[in-house]
Amino acid sequence: MYKVYGDIQSGNCYKIKLLMNLLNLSHTWVHLELLKSATRTEAFKLMNSNMKIPVLELDDKRFIAESNAILNFLSAGTAYLPEDNYQRALVLQWQFFEQYSHEPYIATARFINKYLGLPDDRKAEYLGKQEGGHKALAVMETQLNKSEFLTGTNFTIADISLYAYTHMAHEGGFDLAKYPAIQRWISHVAQTPGFISMDEAAKQVGENGG
Amino acid sequence: MYKVYGDIQSGNCYKIKLLMNLLNLSHTWVHLELLKSATRTEAFKLMNSNMKIPVLELDDKRFIAESNAILNFLSAGTAYLPEDNYQRALVLQWQFFEQYSHEPYIATARFINKYLGLPDDRKAEYLGKQEGGHKALAVMETQLNKSEFLTGTNFTIADISLYAYTHMAHEGGFDLAKYPAIQRWISHVAQTPGFISMDEAAKQVGENGG
Repeated sequence: MYKVYGDIQSGNCYKIKLLMNLLNLSHTWVHLELLKSATRTEAFKLMNSNMKIPVLELDDKRFIAESNAILNFLSAGTAYLPEDNYQRALVLQWQFFEQYSHEPYIATARFINKYLGLPDDRKAEYLGKQEGGHKALAVMETQLNKSEFLTGTNFTIADISLYAYTHMAHEGGFDLAKYPAIQRWISHVAQTPGFISMDEAAKQVGENGG
Repeated sequence: MYKVYGDIQSGNCYKIKLLMNLLNLSHTWVHLELLKSATRTEAFKLMNSNMKIPVLELDDKRFIAESNAILNFLSAGTAYLPEDNYQRALVLQWQFFEQYSHEPYIATARFINKYLGLPDDRKAEYLGKQEGGHKALAVMETQLNKSEFLTGTNFTIADISLYAYTHMAHEGGFDLAKYPAIQRWISHVAQTPGFISMDEAAKQVGENGG
């Protein structure tokens, strides 16, 4: 059985829980609290020398780190990962976009605001994240005006990757009212059979809701 | 025939040229100069709404953005991308590590130092990049002390992704003398049949060497 080390309050970890629910994959969730630096142990370093969650542990004690690598691994052979090489490249295109052009702005702004309480010494950084975040949202809006999901007509792991931090972008100060296509897409994702919200996921694994 | 829009002086673009050379893929290289904001046109925005290079254009005018997505697309079915799902996940793990934990420190420090000439108003940012860059190099060193290449015994696109900015990390102020396993790996990559250096690649596509 799979074991996942993570903290549902992190969008990167929630992604894994969401896909596992959609695929009905049985697993054990090991809660490592982000704010308590629970990854800074020698034991964890052996699982992921980059000391970040989530980490997936396989039955044979092999490990995979990086949320989007884990999503690709778990979705291979399922409807969430296209077989066509070009469609697969588009999935990866959106996932790399997410890690480089989206997450560092939207997730970081949320973290500073929601978890650190927007302290004075991080306020300039928080404000500096707004422009990049809106740029990323505009890129998504452009695509979602052209297609139902990010890579076309099918819901893929690219949508899971981007959904994680986009649906709570308001917690980082981003008003989604300006992005109707994103709002439509968020509703669509949440209506998928097997969908689990971040709050429900946190309850299911015994974490405190965010 | 493939068309690549890029600037060899960008490690993200050089990655594509290196893989294409290793695979002997014929292509046209369209030089878009990074420093001249050559991507800020409406025509380019239609190819990649995120307005970043590199972009790969296929024969049928479809496009792929994000360097690591392009590498995955081009290497499908070749020795540079493993067929095994776990090995493939490790390739992606290193590529996502590269974009989130390596490139924003090492490539950005190089850009500020080499291309902008380390101006006073970016000096604090440059110095701030050093810790994260060394942390990323330490993660690579740990792995390369355990295996010949990043994912094991085979040279994959994960090595191409990380080679691009690591081999010129000194241009961002990172002394690789502290990382003997990385140095050994850099030599090994450069000895691969079909390897092309950044300078040779720039000459081949008619750009000025860096």
